[in-house]
Amino acid sequence: MLTFIGLGLYDERSITVEGRDALRAADRVYAEFYTSQLIGTTIDDLESYHDLEIEVRDRAGVEQHPDDMLTAAEDEDIAFLTAGDTMISTTHVDLRLRAHDRGIETRVIHGVTAQTATSALTGLQNYRFGKATTLPFPYAHGAEGLPASVTETIDDNRADGLHTVVYLDIKVGYDPTSSQNSSSSDDKAEREEYMTADVGAELLAAEYPDLAGVVVARAGSPDPLVEAGTMTELAGREFGDPLHLLVIPGECHLLEADALVELAGADRAVLEIA
Amino acid sequence: MLTFIGLGLYDERSITVEGRDALRAADRVYAEFYTSQLIGTTIDDLESYHDLEIEVRDRAGVEQHPDDMLTAAEDEDIAFLTAGDTMISTTHVDLRLRAHDRGIETRVIHGVTAQTATSALTGLQNYRFGKATTLPFPYAHGAEGLPASVTETIDDNRADGLHTVVYLDIKVGYDPTSSQNSSSSDDKAEREEYMTADVGAELLAAEYPDLAGVVVARAGSPDPLVEAGTMTELAGREFGDPLHLLVIPGECHLLEADALVELAGADRAVLEIA
Repeated sequence: MLTFIGLGLYDERSITVEGRDALRAADRVYAEFYTSQLIGTTIDDLESYHDLEIEVRDRAGVEQHPDDMLTAAEDEDIAFLTAGDTMISTTHVDLRLRAHDRGIETRVIHGVTAQTATSALTGLQNYRFGKATTLPFPYAHGAEGLPASVTETIDDNRADGLHTVVYLDIKVGYDPTSSQNSSSSDDKAEREEYMTADVGAELLAAEYPDLAGVVVARAGSPDPLVEAGTMTELAGREFGDPLHLLVIPGECHLLEADALVELAGADRAVLEIA
Repeated sequence: MLTFIGLGLYDERSITVEGRDALRAADRVYAEFYTSQLIGTTIDDLESYHDLEIEVRDRAGVEQHPDDMLTAAEDEDIAFLTAGDTMISTTHVDLRLRAHDRGIETRVIHGVTAQTATSALTGLQNYRFGKATTLPFPYAHGAEGLPASVTETIDDNRADGLHTVVYLDIKVGYDPTSSQNSSSSDDKAEREEYMTADVGAELLAAEYPDLAGVVVARAGSPDPLVEAGTMTELAGREFGDPLHLLVIPGECHLLEADALVELAGADRAVLEIA
């Protein structure tokens, strides 16, 4: 049995009660934190809170060499953990399908996602969001200007009056199972990189200087921040600890506009009111 | 202090650990179940699991007459509960803004949503969904055929290669605080109505008989069902207990198609492969 468990957004208490119970009942626990991270806790704190050991896998250990996890899941109850929900990016769909191919029963225990928290914290209705996009670091994109995937998503959604979530790039190469380098804690610091919302807004301002954006920082934490402004304005501010993302509001219903003005300090004049 | 807490999708253990702790620390607890319901539990079971009393409000008690809740929140820790997440429909954004206007501190503790579970259970990537829509009961729609809001959403998303979540209508008029009618349990049965996926597929088949759809039933429960077919095929099947929803896949990446074939029994020939 292989149970995929979403840890939610922030710390060891962001998991559901059902997920916690399944985690504690598992014979072995694996996790990956290269797709996202829990900013409010550490692997040690997760282990001690739930009184268990977690084997953290790097991308290769999940995507290329999952065989030992799958073999274990043939006879034992294996839990596989990620931040947010385990299944909303296809990376782990592949792992689930590999398990199916081997006749291993699988189960998904969902976690709260950034998408949910973004809609909830901004007051923008979930069914009025279009396709989401991810803004890569320029060095990862490897070309001048914004990727077409970003501008086309924003432009298409705006043409349809829809809101856009712009996820900001995360690069995490940390592999705590590696012992080849004795300075592993330095290694970790070097290899974690989160794009902050001011950097994201600056990249977007090159194309959309006067477009209204909303920064959502630390969604799911006890001190989330929601702050609106034009891309140019947001590029000049700081929003504190990660994780950050940006929302580009489309046409706003009156109550959505009220929420952005009241909760995010938006200037009503720069919003499009439906 | 007014803390909005999402109960998640299924039963008393679908809440996050953080949400449960905040719920148990509250001085008073209010809830509404007219926007959605927890199918795997009852109000009595919720109360006894968490060892507290819950005052369930009808729509008028939340949207028109929330003053006593807000007055209580000026001096006490008040929790307000819904299924899923409390804030992704604007109904409760209004309540939050009313609290802000009165200088009451608010906080949102998120819950797992049907949107998250739908992406996770189908293997369709969350960032490849377009706008969502809701299919109303024909008597609620009040006209022949499918509402334009539904067909336009489906058609626009398909034109863009995006997946569509079609939520199915829920009518819940149950008000457990009402004592005017002694046959209240009969009343409850009469006034709860969930559109099942076969009914939804039959309505959609009038316009889209050969379109591929995916039924997601009991998302977030221990026995979710994910089943693909054409709308005509799905209209002739049964999917068991509620809640149900439908997904209309757009262009599928190869791994998304693999997931629909493997997890939902889709016929690969009716999927559009990107």
